[in-house]
Amino acid sequence: MSEKDNKKTKYIGKQSIEFNDPPYIISASSVAGKKEGEGPLGSLFDVIQEDPMVGKDTWEEAESELMKQAAEKAIEKAGLSNKDIRYLLAGDLLGQLIATSFGVAELQIPFFGLFGACSTMGEAMSIGSILVDGGYADKVLAVTSSHFAGAEKQFRFPLDYGNQRPYSASWTVTGSGAVILAKQNCSNTSGPTIRVKGITTGKIMDYGIKDPMNMGAAMAPAACDTIKQNLEDFGVKPDHYDKIITGDLGYVGSDILIDLLKEHNIDISSNHMDCGKEIFDQEKQDTHAGGSGCACSAITFTGFVLKQLKEGKWKRVLFLPTGSLHSKVSYNEGATMPGIAHAVIVEAE
Amino acid sequence: MSEKDNKKTKYIGKQSIEFNDPPYIISASSVAGKKEGEGPLGSLFDVIQEDPMVGKDTWEEAESELMKQAAEKAIEKAGLSNKDIRYLLAGDLLGQLIATSFGVAELQIPFFGLFGACSTMGEAMSIGSILVDGGYADKVLAVTSSHFAGAEKQFRFPLDYGNQRPYSASWTVTGSGAVILAKQNCSNTSGPTIRVKGITTGKIMDYGIKDPMNMGAAMAPAACDTIKQNLEDFGVKPDHYDKIITGDLGYVGSDILIDLLKEHNIDISSNHMDCGKEIFDQEKQDTHAGGSGCACSAITFTGFVLKQLKEGKWKRVLFLPTGSLHSKVSYNEGATMPGIAHAVIVEAE
Repeated sequence: MSEKDNKKTKYIGKQSIEFNDPPYIISASSVAGKKEGEGPLGSLFDVIQEDPMVGKDTWEEAESELMKQAAEKAIEKAGLSNKDIRYLLAGDLLGQLIATSFGVAELQIPFFGLFGACSTMGEAMSIGSILVDGGYADKVLAVTSSHFAGAEKQFRFPLDYGNQRPYSASWTVTGSGAVILAKQNCSNTSGPTIRVKGITTGKIMDYGIKDPMNMGAAMAPAACDTIKQNLEDFGVKPDHYDKIITGDLGYVGSDILIDLLKEHNIDISSNHMDCGKEIFDQEKQDTHAGGSGCACSAITFTGFVLKQLKEGKWKRVLFLPTGSLHSKVSYNEGATMPGIAHAVIVEAE
Repeated sequence: MSEKDNKKTKYIGKQSIEFNDPPYIISASSVAGKKEGEGPLGSLFDVIQEDPMVGKDTWEEAESELMKQAAEKAIEKAGLSNKDIRYLLAGDLLGQLIATSFGVAELQIPFFGLFGACSTMGEAMSIGSILVDGGYADKVLAVTSSHFAGAEKQFRFPLDYGNQRPYSASWTVTGSGAVILAKQNCSNTSGPTIRVKGITTGKIMDYGIKDPMNMGAAMAPAACDTIKQNLEDFGVKPDHYDKIITGDLGYVGSDILIDLLKEHNIDISSNHMDCGKEIFDQEKQDTHAGGSGCACSAITFTGFVLKQLKEGKWKRVLFLPTGSLHSKVSYNEGATMPGIAHAVIVEAE
């Protein structure tokens, strides 16, 4: 961490930043779909939308509405108004981010659109933290969404086909999660304060996986690389974190991640958690490899992880949403599925 | 600009940042397609690719190759290697940014994927400047691309249809432009140094336009809003800038922009320039409303605008790429086309 001596240099190691003035997470919201509401974390979400169309005419509009509700809920919970938010950082899985554009347009907040596939919440929280730590904003809003039906239509098969899904396939989470990052701890909740202490930004990793029904395998190498780099950059061991929380590797990808890290003599088997494994009951809910989508990590983080930190059950976590950077077109053209993972260090004080 | 008194606060007005330590543009590159090479700016581009497939098998791979070449060219021109670049900020128009992911994966630079449609170069240079000014990076690379054939396939009709295009339709630019932003002026070129003095980040503006063959009309309100806000936030008049340079409003959108600003008593008719109008010869090249696409503003900026600043012809410009936030799906579902524009103040010293 020698660069830290120079106050103007805020980065450390190869790919990380340690914040001088770690941003506070002053508010968070989770809007979940019906199936997510019926899962193990169901009771923790702010809102459960029983109607998959959320009162709209299309899946895409439904997803926009989920994002709008999550953004507004986070602002409302913080006792703020739209005008208090300096930047909005958001993204989703749909081509040209239409769930986002139509979801957040009305908020009229200066907007940076982000795409990191299912890693987008990590990307949004990373850039959001930089904006706040650097003095470019007092408060920023990071929000992502996904919708099972919209994602199936976008990436796989029309729902009406009723196609069979292999056990390595994941189930896209319907929902949206939002956090507000702030310079001052103006949270109106009691308990410990929650801060983003640092980030490790991922590189694109491509191990040649081509099966969109096995995204866990495509993303595991990226998660491995980001975790390895985080530990190296900060000079810590895996047990520095109470939990190392991947986004949506699911059952297949999580096993691969643990094996890949063992090749580097890094053992995270005792403190690894994957949002994709937590959000559904694999047996009862027929969700095969687990949950996925931008909302998988977003609502698990806002609904579950933050509460564990608030309640003092965990003190420090490494949260790293994972994304598979493929499209219907790239898949049909025979391209591989590169992965990426963006890590955020979140601590309770 | 009262907030400036507090050194920790770097933002001004409603939507702008004035950099304390303005990043230097130390290198830039432009890779253009054949048609762009035959246009009025043809002699200014670093590379002209005569082959629309750039030696690849698909339009998408061709676009990835353009971006890879632009990124590598900018790094090479600066006498740097990939390892010297702390962050890569990039995006394109294709669903799930596949031109970008496959184009930059090999560079192995920590990567933030961005989507602002054709405004992406403004977004990438904005976030890149924040990273450098804030001390989070010594050098960052911002790159965007587009490809005529890939965009037609994505948004409109297969080329083989040979469909007629209305005069309000724009022609997507084939190419890729890249800039390297740096903390130190380590440019190895002579002449004035070029710095990013500030940014104004756009909000999503939706005036209800629904015709993807008239994107200029969809984007003009966003350009109007960002310019108006920039002038207000910095407390300056339009003649503060030698040029106010929009991305790809084209002939139709540019006229609308000038009219919209006049309603606010702002007259930019004497110093407005639009990259979409500059890049093609409207009459000889049958390009109707002008050029568009992420590469339109990117290569016009890197190939033409920066040279005008370097040669002392202009001293200060407001560069604001403009984007139309629609997709094939949103269009087919009858949705509107919201627009966004991200402004960057670039000065020669």
